[in-house]
Amino acid sequence: MPAEKVELADLRPLRQEVKPTQWGVAAPCSSETFKTRSNKSKPLARDWTDRLSHESASRTGSSLKGAFKHLQNPNIISLGGGLPLSEYFPFDKVGFVNPQVANGQVTEKKLESYAGKHDLRNGQSVFDLSVALNYGQGSGSAQLLRWITEHVEIVHNPRYADWQCTMSIGNTSAWDMVLRMFTKAGDVVLSDAYTFSSATETASPFGVKFVGVEMDDQGIRPDSLRHILNTWDPAEHGGSPKPFLYYAIPTGQNPTGSTQSTERRKEIYRVAQEHDLLICEDDPYYFLQMDQFDPSSKPNDTTTNKPSAADLVKMIVPSFLALDTDGRVIRMDSFSKVISPGLRVGWVTAPEQIIERYKKHADVSTQSPSGLSQIALFKLLDEQWGHAGFFDWLLHLRTEYTQRRDVAAHACERHLPKSLLSWSVPEAGMFLWVKLDWEKHPQAAGKTATEVEELVWHDVLAEGALVARGSWFTAAPSKTANEVFFRITFAAAPLDKVEEAIRRWGEALRKSFNIQSEI
Amino acid sequence: MPAEKVELADLRPLRQEVKPTQWGVAAPCSSETFKTRSNKSKPLARDWTDRLSHESASRTGSSLKGAFKHLQNPNIISLGGGLPLSEYFPFDKVGFVNPQVANGQVTEKKLESYAGKHDLRNGQSVFDLSVALNYGQGSGSAQLLRWITEHVEIVHNPRYADWQCTMSIGNTSAWDMVLRMFTKAGDVVLSDAYTFSSATETASPFGVKFVGVEMDDQGIRPDSLRHILNTWDPAEHGGSPKPFLYYAIPTGQNPTGSTQSTERRKEIYRVAQEHDLLICEDDPYYFLQMDQFDPSSKPNDTTTNKPSAADLVKMIVPSFLALDTDGRVIRMDSFSKVISPGLRVGWVTAPEQIIERYKKHADVSTQSPSGLSQIALFKLLDEQWGHAGFFDWLLHLRTEYTQRRDVAAHACERHLPKSLLSWSVPEAGMFLWVKLDWEKHPQAAGKTATEVEELVWHDVLAEGALVARGSWFTAAPSKTANEVFFRITFAAAPLDKVEEAIRRWGEALRKSFNIQSEI
Repeated sequence: MPAEKVELADLRPLRQEVKPTQWGVAAPCSSETFKTRSNKSKPLARDWTDRLSHESASRTGSSLKGAFKHLQNPNIISLGGGLPLSEYFPFDKVGFVNPQVANGQVTEKKLESYAGKHDLRNGQSVFDLSVALNYGQGSGSAQLLRWITEHVEIVHNPRYADWQCTMSIGNTSAWDMVLRMFTKAGDVVLSDAYTFSSATETASPFGVKFVGVEMDDQGIRPDSLRHILNTWDPAEHGGSPKPFLYYAIPTGQNPTGSTQSTERRKEIYRVAQEHDLLICEDDPYYFLQMDQFDPSSKPNDTTTNKPSAADLVKMIVPSFLALDTDGRVIRMDSFSKVISPGLRVGWVTAPEQIIERYKKHADVSTQSPSGLSQIALFKLLDEQWGHAGFFDWLLHLRTEYTQRRDVAAHACERHLPKSLLSWSVPEAGMFLWVKLDWEKHPQAAGKTATEVEELVWHDVLAEGALVARGSWFTAAPSKTANEVFFRITFAAAPLDKVEEAIRRWGEALRKSFNIQSEI
Repeated sequence: MPAEKVELADLRPLRQEVKPTQWGVAAPCSSETFKTRSNKSKPLARDWTDRLSHESASRTGSSLKGAFKHLQNPNIISLGGGLPLSEYFPFDKVGFVNPQVANGQVTEKKLESYAGKHDLRNGQSVFDLSVALNYGQGSGSAQLLRWITEHVEIVHNPRYADWQCTMSIGNTSAWDMVLRMFTKAGDVVLSDAYTFSSATETASPFGVKFVGVEMDDQGIRPDSLRHILNTWDPAEHGGSPKPFLYYAIPTGQNPTGSTQSTERRKEIYRVAQEHDLLICEDDPYYFLQMDQFDPSSKPNDTTTNKPSAADLVKMIVPSFLALDTDGRVIRMDSFSKVISPGLRVGWVTAPEQIIERYKKHADVSTQSPSGLSQIALFKLLDEQWGHAGFFDWLLHLRTEYTQRRDVAAHACERHLPKSLLSWSVPEAGMFLWVKLDWEKHPQAAGKTATEVEELVWHDVLAEGALVARGSWFTAAPSKTANEVFFRITFAAAPLDKVEEAIRRWGEALRKSFNIQSEI
């Protein structure tokens, strides 16, 4: 099968046969076992060993978990690990009711599935509660890791051979672990000028700062990135060495909503190669790419030529992982925006050497994601939907988010004073980023941009709408910003409330700026 | 109600009324809201601010999560956070089948419960999938935190006023977070001479070493602890300052199986007061305390005078938390050994100042435990069993573990060569700690204890039994040990296999040491 082929059909015939012990309690597992395509012609990833932090390099891993490998031999009785017996898990059965999706639409039919305690032993499933509710490995369970590995092949099909996946408990934790793997106090991470506030808040307590790179409508600018790297002088940055970690949110960026085009990604990747950067691709909104905004459309327009699930994979912009020839991308995926945040399951894809360090770290900190979450995802994604069904669901989300975005964009047109505010309509994600001409504020004289931002934010709150302040997202908060932005999300409220909140926002601004009549 | 009273009855009438928004998506919560007893007469905890690491002290928390407080006002429409809508969670309903327990025994009857997407809105429950499957707070959900807070009151009833709980994703992660809160590279943590290997493996990559304190049958020795602290000279410890963190596994210690008596705990606590130690009480085996071992009993003896669930609370040894008058104990509890490890839910109890730092850290790393795990626990522990039912379950576990321990102890008597091995029968936990007279090994001359340990371990493995090597658990692995121990667990295999594995172990040892006839 050509490596480029997008394959959404049932992958089960392509699956390698694995030993039954692979599905057992805390069985070690690796993406290598689950790849359905040959990697033989691909090169190996660059070696990042020289960049590992002392903390990461010195991890020896858990000796107890190491001993689990002997349990692959069914003749060995284990008195080794303190794993409780499944008869002491007071859950006999867990059942799930999930929606069925077909052609990008949720149908009337409901899918029901059950996980019993001994489905594995009884030959009913390769995953059951006796395994899911016991201890696991840092990688997560083999059962779900197989599905994830296949998904990565379908969507990103990495260009180097030794890529692997491991589960995370979410991208925030994954980022925390990547930072501890590759940075030390005094280091600098490069990012968009405005970036996800939790990403900087994760780093700053251990002395790692962000330096923001100029952005345009497509996010980070390659020329600015190159300039910063070409002219880096530690003396100008409090002694920080030249950065080698770039934190990217390439799709539906948080907070600006910008999406890097394919060409932009390639340019950025070239800069990364020139300066040997490691790209940490935090991409939770990847599958919230939307149809193009048509300002003349009615919000409830539904296209007659609906794309299929297979079209979806072709329509979406390639990830950095898909472009990565050198193994310089650590991609962090999350189920949070496409299935549910509360499950606390995501995954990381990177060269095997990095995944190995990650798993060792997980073994002595986060351990594995919740086994209950894992079996819920396995039942839905592997046993019920399969890859094709998941893409049908993603197609459904695309339609829904397109509609929500359109409603928000039209409401902004209708309700926001254009003499004060400007924005562009996002192609992906959950956010609309709105710039305020703050100097027009009656009390602007003698106030900083941030002070006006605060003033206006409280006015909007008093009118009954909560929006996020742009200053929360500055990569380097110490610099005095001279711009004011607000981030609004069209994802979190019912559609009529989104419209109403935007109306209140416009209202609050007109009061605040004394421009009652204009919209 | 007197603070000392053990209360297992339905606590619902004592619950404070809380605002409905408390049960909403990512609603901030605090144990303070859920305490059923007055704390007015109790003193406040010692202030630990001066001991916080730079990392912990400089945490400002998540600005986004901080904004959630405004959502307590139902009139405010949020365009603030990127929280997906529950209609995009492809789980309509999750059902659970759990065992019923009465008088410490599992009955024939099964308990069934369901979590729907909008049970909260529909008035059917205070917790539902729309909340559980969305983002949460570092503390975990209010719904389960209430139950946990009440449980802590029932069992430990802390003696100072400003204690709080927060959920963790398990004790390994909690320990990782405590270390990052209170230590820096070069620091030393005190522990038992043999301790949980993951605890040291978590600490060592960031340069924090363990120093082991001498142990006897009751675990750590107060005189040794005092001596180490009295005579601490940084020069003798590579410059490490005098330690102030003591990592304790007071009950069914891993790996030695020892349990500190009440008197021992009080003595240790006095040393902690003298030297201003902070005690980190890692206590997953607390409820695996067993009946006394009677060497003359038959393994399947069942006592006729069964204790009740209320008796259980009186029978168990008090925790450090229960003895803590100063707020110098960070207690880590886990559902892993009493419900299921795969749920990845535990909790931490400590002074409010420490819990506040912990939650801030969780917000930018682990976030909350899986919402699916939380709602599974809530349905079972709050809605189905209640506190009384949970104690009935614990009583059941006590009976089961007592029986397992007895089978293992009798099997050791029967199968192990006493000229080589010695052990004492544990009162709690999962482990039997067996000392080997390694110098009797035919190849002992010219070999170290650890080399003989390895040799014997492989012999045992070849005979078909996996046990854990004592050297994996040395607090300070650099020191050349002159003793050989093995840890066996009677928790993880079916009873007949436990006996068989112990038989194989004895067999392997007799072969290894050339003492075929003797048992």
